[in-house]
Amino acid sequence: MQIGLLGYGAIGKGIYQTLKDRFQDIYIKKILVRNLNNKDTSFFVTDLEEILNDDDIDTVIIAIDDNKTSYDFATMSLNAKKNVIMTNKSAVANHFSELLKMADSKGVSFKFESVVGSGLPWLSTILEYKNVNEISEVYGTFNGTCNLILDLMKKDGIEFNEALLKTRILCYQEPNYMDDIKGEDSANKLAISIMVALGAYVEPKDIPTYGIETIRNLDFDFFERRELSPKLVSFAKLTNGRLSMLVAPFLFKQGTLMANVSGNNKILGFKGDIVGEVQFIGEAAGVYPTANSVMLDVLDIKNNRCSKIVMPNEVIVDQTAIKHKFYFSFDQTSSKIERILIPYVHSIFETQDSVVITTRNIDFDTCIDLLEKIEMTGERFFFAVYAD
Amino acid sequence: MQIGLLGYGAIGKGIYQTLKDRFQDIYIKKILVRNLNNKDTSFFVTDLEEILNDDDIDTVIIAIDDNKTSYDFATMSLNAKKNVIMTNKSAVANHFSELLKMADSKGVSFKFESVVGSGLPWLSTILEYKNVNEISEVYGTFNGTCNLILDLMKKDGIEFNEALLKTRILCYQEPNYMDDIKGEDSANKLAISIMVALGAYVEPKDIPTYGIETIRNLDFDFFERRELSPKLVSFAKLTNGRLSMLVAPFLFKQGTLMANVSGNNKILGFKGDIVGEVQFIGEAAGVYPTANSVMLDVLDIKNNRCSKIVMPNEVIVDQTAIKHKFYFSFDQTSSKIERILIPYVHSIFETQDSVVITTRNIDFDTCIDLLEKIEMTGERFFFAVYAD
Repeated sequence: MQIGLLGYGAIGKGIYQTLKDRFQDIYIKKILVRNLNNKDTSFFVTDLEEILNDDDIDTVIIAIDDNKTSYDFATMSLNAKKNVIMTNKSAVANHFSELLKMADSKGVSFKFESVVGSGLPWLSTILEYKNVNEISEVYGTFNGTCNLILDLMKKDGIEFNEALLKTRILCYQEPNYMDDIKGEDSANKLAISIMVALGAYVEPKDIPTYGIETIRNLDFDFFERRELSPKLVSFAKLTNGRLSMLVAPFLFKQGTLMANVSGNNKILGFKGDIVGEVQFIGEAAGVYPTANSVMLDVLDIKNNRCSKIVMPNEVIVDQTAIKHKFYFSFDQTSSKIERILIPYVHSIFETQDSVVITTRNIDFDTCIDLLEKIEMTGERFFFAVYAD
Repeated sequence: MQIGLLGYGAIGKGIYQTLKDRFQDIYIKKILVRNLNNKDTSFFVTDLEEILNDDDIDTVIIAIDDNKTSYDFATMSLNAKKNVIMTNKSAVANHFSELLKMADSKGVSFKFESVVGSGLPWLSTILEYKNVNEISEVYGTFNGTCNLILDLMKKDGIEFNEALLKTRILCYQEPNYMDDIKGEDSANKLAISIMVALGAYVEPKDIPTYGIETIRNLDFDFFERRELSPKLVSFAKLTNGRLSMLVAPFLFKQGTLMANVSGNNKILGFKGDIVGEVQFIGEAAGVYPTANSVMLDVLDIKNNRCSKIVMPNEVIVDQTAIKHKFYFSFDQTSSKIERILIPYVHSIFETQDSVVITTRNIDFDTCIDLLEKIEMTGERFFFAVYAD
């Protein structure tokens, strides 16, 4: 089996190295790079056509950060009847159906195991289990940077910006770290999981998404006293064919599993009607876990064992099916905000530097509406969902 | 695809029902039962030969509790060139190589996904990941009954026998519950995991195995004060080709993942050199999770995608590679025991009703030697491993 590799950054190099170390009968024939810089031109190329026109190459692995380039190269490769393995989650999330349809029509495979929970057998297990189960729910702490920031704030008692800086130094961050902390990375991964597991078509932009960028250490004071631990969670559930979905900080009771998944680990879970609940935990990020998932895609293609991915269907989004208590914190009392929240208030806690308002049980829909109104006041606030 | 089902107890019925509900092109042609009791004789049979001589049937699912019968029927089915799916872990653990060799020589498949962590993709993921990784370590809380007993003792402050009775009422227990609490069930599952993941041949009886049957509520008093949580753990690690393995109660710090896997959930993990650490959590027991795993075996056979299981090799067992602190508790001070433990003592804690001795770091080998000597004194004691 001969492969064309597009991109030779950290991920590309990890894929190349792993393939070389572990397989004799699978190898990379050509690598597409932007600049040759004296590289061996019999192996490195700068023109994609050299790979697409090479009949020995049946599979293309795309290890490119840029979303648009990733997507463009995917369509070109599929059109050239190459199997495509992608590592760029935004490109997969935003062009899922189109790329899947293109692959189907060309009779090739479109694989992307590494894009959610890389290293963990997340999408592959879901696809296998769908042969036996109706899957009704997917969730997880999909973003490692957010896990780590929240962990650092909790353990070291530091503020958000300091924790953010520390995670950047620790190199856990993707180049575009604002996508991480604003929840966009989590929304991309949730969209892919929804389409694969629940068979429902969604675009990442349609998922209500709230990040952790406004959390303060004062919030942790409140959480600690109540033995709560915040995690940025992606959540989606089908109830009678209607879809609820949300990316937001959730508050978990200390002593629960979700509260105790530490630092650079992620937890991903799904529910099937036969198997019940299945959870995966692992670092789920980094060069070699990604390479591991890409290798599994390569082997599936080589052994002709790719699980069928069903084209996702349009479904009705209904955010009223799930009810939770919610947490809002502000810098100061504001009559505007009180007017918005007062019909839903459970408790109000005021200190010198913050006001915390918790609500009674309300549905996602109502909460999203409240959030829009609060955003319009221009006040800084942090928002979280009580997990139960 | 037509199947012969051997056994029609709770598991057999669950398998039959799931196959009937979820698949049109796969069905059970005949079911072997002990007594017909007015059952339809065109479907239920009492003679295995009626299934083995039926050329339409290419696969046999064995859902029989009795170890010896399970094993006998497996060999007979393999000899008749039927693919065999087993659900009896003791039969698999004790006859692994023999059954695998027999299946290979007859050109059929021998599958047993449900026997460890049923419902979780444990063995299947390990087999897939072995194509890319060297796997060096497997571990887990493999036994649900022990998890639940320890949880009940901790939460309700009750003694072992009361917790045991409660779990029996809650129906979580296998018929032969002494195998659970003495760690034999965990040893069977560990042996299978070692053979599949580490490729090392072991017999369950060769794994040093210590259960939870002598734990007292006084032990929990000690653990609580030190924020420790006991779990019965199966553990095996290859270090430079040498195998360490143990089934024993381990003590985990509260706040760690292992300490927070609750009641009827299990955690299973492995380490690969490319992927790092991967963990699975789920109920991993019961009729439908088992049926789920059996279905995946059936689909693998139907789609001709069974992962190759490599025949395990003899390896050197070396219990000196891993060092831990150990915990011993006794009813009273005894000069005999003190003489045995004194060279290794870290601390001694005496109360009116118990003596606790903790050791400094010693290797498994030394510890197993100490345990043998302590057992010879005839004193009641409880023993556990400090996880770190």
